[in-house]
Amino acid sequence: MEKQRVVVALGGNALGRNVEEQKEAVAKTARVIVDLYEQGMELIITHGNGPQVGMIQSAMDSLITKYDNFKQVPLPTSVAMSQGYIGIDLQNAIKYELYNRNIDGKVSTILSQVEVDLNDKAFDHPSKPIGRFMTKEEAEINEKNGVPCMEDSGRGYRIVVASPMPQRIRELQTIKTLLAAGHIVITCGGGGIPVANQNGKLVGVNAIVDKDNVSSLLAANLDANYLIILTAVEKVAINFGKENEEWLSDLTIEQAREYAAQGHFAKGSMLPKVEAAISFAESKEGRRTLITLLDKAPEGIAGKTGTLIHR
Amino acid sequence: MEKQRVVVALGGNALGRNVEEQKEAVAKTARVIVDLYEQGMELIITHGNGPQVGMIQSAMDSLITKYDNFKQVPLPTSVAMSQGYIGIDLQNAIKYELYNRNIDGKVSTILSQVEVDLNDKAFDHPSKPIGRFMTKEEAEINEKNGVPCMEDSGRGYRIVVASPMPQRIRELQTIKTLLAAGHIVITCGGGGIPVANQNGKLVGVNAIVDKDNVSSLLAANLDANYLIILTAVEKVAINFGKENEEWLSDLTIEQAREYAAQGHFAKGSMLPKVEAAISFAESKEGRRTLITLLDKAPEGIAGKTGTLIHR
Repeated sequence: MEKQRVVVALGGNALGRNVEEQKEAVAKTARVIVDLYEQGMELIITHGNGPQVGMIQSAMDSLITKYDNFKQVPLPTSVAMSQGYIGIDLQNAIKYELYNRNIDGKVSTILSQVEVDLNDKAFDHPSKPIGRFMTKEEAEINEKNGVPCMEDSGRGYRIVVASPMPQRIRELQTIKTLLAAGHIVITCGGGGIPVANQNGKLVGVNAIVDKDNVSSLLAANLDANYLIILTAVEKVAINFGKENEEWLSDLTIEQAREYAAQGHFAKGSMLPKVEAAISFAESKEGRRTLITLLDKAPEGIAGKTGTLIHR
Repeated sequence: MEKQRVVVALGGNALGRNVEEQKEAVAKTARVIVDLYEQGMELIITHGNGPQVGMIQSAMDSLITKYDNFKQVPLPTSVAMSQGYIGIDLQNAIKYELYNRNIDGKVSTILSQVEVDLNDKAFDHPSKPIGRFMTKEEAEINEKNGVPCMEDSGRGYRIVVASPMPQRIRELQTIKTLLAAGHIVITCGGGGIPVANQNGKLVGVNAIVDKDNVSSLLAANLDANYLIILTAVEKVAINFGKENEEWLSDLTIEQAREYAAQGHFAKGSMLPKVEAAISFAESKEGRRTLITLLDKAPEGIAGKTGTLIHR
């Protein structure tokens, strides 16, 4: 049987708010990744960076008053730093889990960039929450200073930035080369470093590309069999949180579209995941997206849980 | 003729003190790298990160008082961030220079770690200056708080950290795979993320590995023909700055060792470069190290300038 190729998208919120929490989170993540690897899958790992890139931006901002001639660090630069910050812990945790199971597996992390379209309408409507949670009062101060904020899923206020659609993953050939050499590849961290192609020059763009959208594009580009979007619930639900709540095991693209149109999935939370899931599943016959909890991914791939979205 | 394989080690101090300066510096660097690439060389680029990792550490420190439960970010984590910060600009500048010359070259940046020995004597004698320059008074405050500082080459005071010898480059296979696929590879940034191997677990180490030492090890591991150590002078000198100053074009290992023993090369400046140069040149017949200015590297490789250290 041919190897299953699987793109696994990890949530940034599940990676912890500081170095210590991250090291714990990646150890747990690594166990699941290596479970999948032991099932003979080719794995590509992507991850979010909402809390982490916010942390880095906040830290770099402190230098503006401290150092002479120090301007605000552009968001793409902070995304690049977050790929280093998260990638190395993830890589080492996976490598250690492989070591503990006596598996001689290779793991690599590459810096990666994603081209976006500067005319994307997303730039008019910042929608991606980053950084730590703030009180309403803190958010109001930010808004007054021209920094857009929004309430995020009942957890508090956060800064928001534009989240344009990914158009092209720049390091695709590198990812393919390493996959062909048998590596587990960690890539497109934080949705990829957002860039615009200006006459051959890649220029950083002030945005955060959604990691599920970039994972969907990456999975299609790599002709993967599965995209696994890990989230905080075991399955996708309709009527979420209501009396007639219903957990779904299986969704055709048409059903998923219909439920989305009916408003069953929360904006900025489950909706973009379902949209990314649809986008991959409809790109070619046989491509499937699984949405589930980290712990349930191996069972989900075996068809025992999670929500499978397919043609 | 077989391709020449060349490891080019860039100085962190030449990369600028902030985002804007770095973008200018990498554009200049990229022209030289692509000059070498056009001569048909296989290139591996390493870089220092002294000022940059100091900047990142300083920024992250600001979060200790700002966020709850936020501890000081470990130095290896900041090195990982610096690989993202510097790597992506370097990669894009090289890619753009290739584009401008109508060359379809591939460039990749991988996160990379270097194992050190926790019993290395370097841990007893911190010697690697990082971060921005301080006044004597600022340095004294740091020293009182247990942060060692030293005067750096007449340019002011800086924080110093331990600089153990690199024992093993963890991502060597990844580098080889990408080289074989025709990539210019950016790696071992900031000397590599320093780690200790504790029963298969890679644990970050509070240190900065010297980028020339790691470049020398990398060049030997990759069986490179040349190691180019770029610095602030065109050639190595004896009696540097004195009346009888003499610029050297050519040095055997024995001569280099003798001049080093006579104290001709400044500690923490030219001495470690000469030592790294010797280490590579003596590792195998035919291996040569060139020490010169960035601009002079192509001429140096052609034997017209710089200091060549060889068997």
